[in-house]
Amino acid sequence: MTKLLITGKSGRMGQSLIQAGTENPQSEVTSTHDVGEDLAAAFAGVDAAIDFTVHQFTDEVLKAAIESNTPLVIGTTGHSDEQKARIEEAAKKLPIVFAPNFSIGVNTLFWLTSKAAQILGNDSFDIEVTEMHHRHKIDSPSGTARRLLDILNEETNTSYQDDVTHGRVGNIGPRPSKEIGMHTLRGGDVVGDHTVMFAADGERVELTHKASSRMTFASGAVRAAIWLQSQPAGLYDMQDVLGLKS
Amino acid sequence: MTKLLITGKSGRMGQSLIQAGTENPQSEVTSTHDVGEDLAAAFAGVDAAIDFTVHQFTDEVLKAAIESNTPLVIGTTGHSDEQKARIEEAAKKLPIVFAPNFSIGVNTLFWLTSKAAQILGNDSFDIEVTEMHHRHKIDSPSGTARRLLDILNEETNTSYQDDVTHGRVGNIGPRPSKEIGMHTLRGGDVVGDHTVMFAADGERVELTHKASSRMTFASGAVRAAIWLQSQPAGLYDMQDVLGLKS
Amino acid sequence: MTKLLITGKSGRMGQSLIQAGTENPQSEVTSTHDVGEDLAAAFAGVDAAIDFTVHQFTDEVLKAAIESNTPLVIGTTGHSDEQKARIEEAAKKLPIVFAPNFSIGVNTLFWLTSKAAQILGNDSFDIEVTEMHHRHKIDSPSGTARRLLDILNEETNTSYQDDVTHGRVGNIGPRPSKEIGMHTLRGGDVVGDHTVMFAADGERVELTHKASSRMTFASGAVRAAIWLQSQPAGLYDMQDVLGLKS
Amino acid sequence: MTKLLITGKSGRMGQSLIQAGTENPQSEVTSTHDVGEDLAAAFAGVDAAIDFTVHQFTDEVLKAAIESNTPLVIGTTGHSDEQKARIEEAAKKLPIVFAPNFSIGVNTLFWLTSKAAQILGNDSFDIEVTEMHHRHKIDSPSGTARRLLDILNEETNTSYQDDVTHGRVGNIGPRPSKEIGMHTLRGGDVVGDHTVMFAADGERVELTHKASSRMTFASGAVRAAIWLQSQPAGLYDMQDVLGLKS
Repeated sequence: MTKLLITGKSGRMGQSLIQAGTENPQSEVTSTHDVGEDLAAAFAGVDAAIDFTVHQFTDEVLKAAIESNTPLVIGTTGHSDEQKARIEEAAKKLPIVFAPNFSIGVNTLFWLTSKAAQILGNDSFDIEVTEMHHRHKIDSPSGTARRLLDILNEETNTSYQDDVTHGRVGNIGPRPSKEIGMHTLRGGDVVGDHTVMFAADGERVELTHKASSRMTFASGAVRAAIWLQSQPAGLYDMQDVLGLKS
Repeated sequence: MTKLLITGKSGRMGQSLIQAGTENPQSEVTSTHDVGEDLAAAFAGVDAAIDFTVHQFTDEVLKAAIESNTPLVIGTTGHSDEQKARIEEAAKKLPIVFAPNFSIGVNTLFWLTSKAAQILGNDSFDIEVTEMHHRHKIDSPSGTARRLLDILNEETNTSYQDDVTHGRVGNIGPRPSKEIGMHTLRGGDVVGDHTVMFAADGERVELTHKASSRMTFASGAVRAAIWLQSQPAGLYDMQDVLGLKS
Repeated sequence: MTKLLITGKSGRMGQSLIQAGTENPQSEVTSTHDVGEDLAAAFAGVDAAIDFTVHQFTDEVLKAAIESNTPLVIGTTGHSDEQKARIEEAAKKLPIVFAPNFSIGVNTLFWLTSKAAQILGNDSFDIEVTEMHHRHKIDSPSGTARRLLDILNEETNTSYQDDVTHGRVGNIGPRPSKEIGMHTLRGGDVVGDHTVMFAADGERVELTHKASSRMTFASGAVRAAIWLQSQPAGLYDMQDVLGLKS
Repeated sequence: MTKLLITGKSGRMGQSLIQAGTENPQSEVTSTHDVGEDLAAAFAGVDAAIDFTVHQFTDEVLKAAIESNTPLVIGTTGHSDEQKARIEEAAKKLPIVFAPNFSIGVNTLFWLTSKAAQILGNDSFDIEVTEMHHRHKIDSPSGTARRLLDILNEETNTSYQDDVTHGRVGNIGPRPSKEIGMHTLRGGDVVGDHTVMFAADGERVELTHKASSRMTFASGAVRAAIWLQSQPAGLYDMQDVLGLKS
């Protein structure tokens, strides 16, 4: 059983992390921390710490982790280059997972998309990507969809600029074989759906991820913390945790 | 059992009509016709005739139908106004079904979309439409999708010009509540998929039609022919056949 | 603007109702109530009240509603026959909506399924139903799926006992045309997905509802409350609210 | 350009192979063969041969391939052990692809399912499999679904006998975490849909294959024939052709 420290215990993400750490049969939450409490004391006796608060708190967390020799999962974003350098420095002494997206499913989708594109992408398969998010999302495509397009571009020798099309209307003519269609749906309170479709004569292969709550990110962070226990010092991301780097 | 005449027996659509007329337990194909054969003889003794050949053949078919007093299903398109007038004239003597799309499922989707939009369209439901067709289709959106948009526009007091968006990219801002997203996917040899989605906080309702072969049009035409037997003279479409006019 | 009273303000459903009543442009939450507070005072000056607490509270709510002549939405379940009789008695003086499921989408799905089965159910369309819920749900099929099957049985002259099959394995032989396949998926924390599929040669029609949060029930209850303002005394359900009774 | 010989040219599969060989930009059909014609003459001058006729023809095809030193794709099934031994013997002299399923998409789905199960299968992801085929299919689950279950069983340390459930009804209790739900839909003329779903708290990953015509098998066979040209003598399957063996 991995003994976990969860910071930001009264926040929404902190609550989700506590739930995920409690539900995972390989971990337990033995310590929590909130603003104003003693951080060094909170680190005492735990096997790993998870911090999803704000990047302004990272330096303090790094210091406490080093002093107590505790593996660390960092889920905050928005760090300055100086902060990133300090994270890298700390990773020489401690195993640290630092990733922009902790969802196991999304990271799996990235990997499967890469492999599927290697197998199907250079053949007569047409590629189309769809994503759907809630009505309040103000940018398109989503960061996850953009990452999927990067992967597809890399594997199929295409580019975002030249080959990705956003919307088709009018006399479009026959579909160029290198084209990648990107379709952004918006509506309701959808947390996030993504599908990559490969269509050829007679068959289609579709890879889909559907997110329904932030628990997906909390579960991934707990999995990373458990994995960290058996790792040497170093800086890792979720592809390492999931064993997808080879 | 409705005794059917199928014209254009050696064509692909003729073959599909013969199969559909044979498989329907309420009909049998007792007569067929092909180019160069005697049309009046082919009409003898049948309960209804189905013509899906070419519009140039319609006048000849109308004449034979009137002479033999045979109900008629016309599935050809591209008629001139004069031809349409002659069809209307013939419908004063005979029951005739004349429709642009004989798919039972597509006509059902049209009707269900109208009703769903009446129930959900004026509330906080966001509407998105997707269609997918094969890579050779040169126009967008499909005729069926365009008809769905017309229905949605009518029921939600929106317009194709002002409220339908084809593709979203960049800093799009929050979704306008009256907006209807139209997404055109192209790839492989897909015969035709259409989905109308209504998305609100906490729930989604989706109506989908998937076509996989021209048998869908043949089956609808046979259903129309069977239905015609019990109808008075008049000009009908598939909404009449399906009892969706009230 | 309909002025709303929400009871049970500190509970999870109360919180969702307050959010739904605030977000709907035709309503505002001007009064709330919690255990131990003065109920009569809470009813003062509102246009409608919504109670989703517990059925033990219904008698008290009915009394306050009658005294203040306030339309009422009752979303609790589990009432005794005596309580139901008292609700009916109150409905002679007040307009009341009393329903087991306030989701607009689910009630729409029920209605569309009935209509689709009328159009497609007696033809050569095969009917299959799927539902998916979280891994903790201990009964199958879900209440909503069971209601869908009741509707389908009624419209297609079939029965749950004789024609609904739960699972197919081994040498099953060709599909009986009256058979209705019911498929229960379980996994993760899925709130509730339901699909009714009509499949024929060459085409499929699918009707789907996906629930993602209890906001769906809160939104439906607010819609019912707004609708109540223009109704005479009487007992109504969500089919009335949605105008689906004709 | 790979010059292809297609046998069984007047059969439905022969016709599909000719179409696939013509449409692939890396191949052309320069020779065809039908019952009663000279097989040795048909093999003259081609780079590879594809035989999807019947297993009774295999010996004759092997002989002609060896004599003309022509790489061979064998798509027939039902061979006796003696025939299989003769195929293996021939593969010492020639490169031969011999596989039960030539669909690129299905073979890709097999491989992706294996990888996804390695990543997600030992975690808190629940696995459900659905398949849909036409109403005439008399066995369940499909061969492809059965192969998916074998892969999932192998990767998740479960067994078909103990852990795969076909249908859930009544008081089923909470879902056992090792359970794999198998759902067989039947209806219309669906060629073949398969989905493997991994569901956890907050997210789902779904892998789907949809077949719409036998062109999928023809395209895969042509791809195999093109690939064969650059291979040494040996016996290969579609996993080799697709480079999925490492």
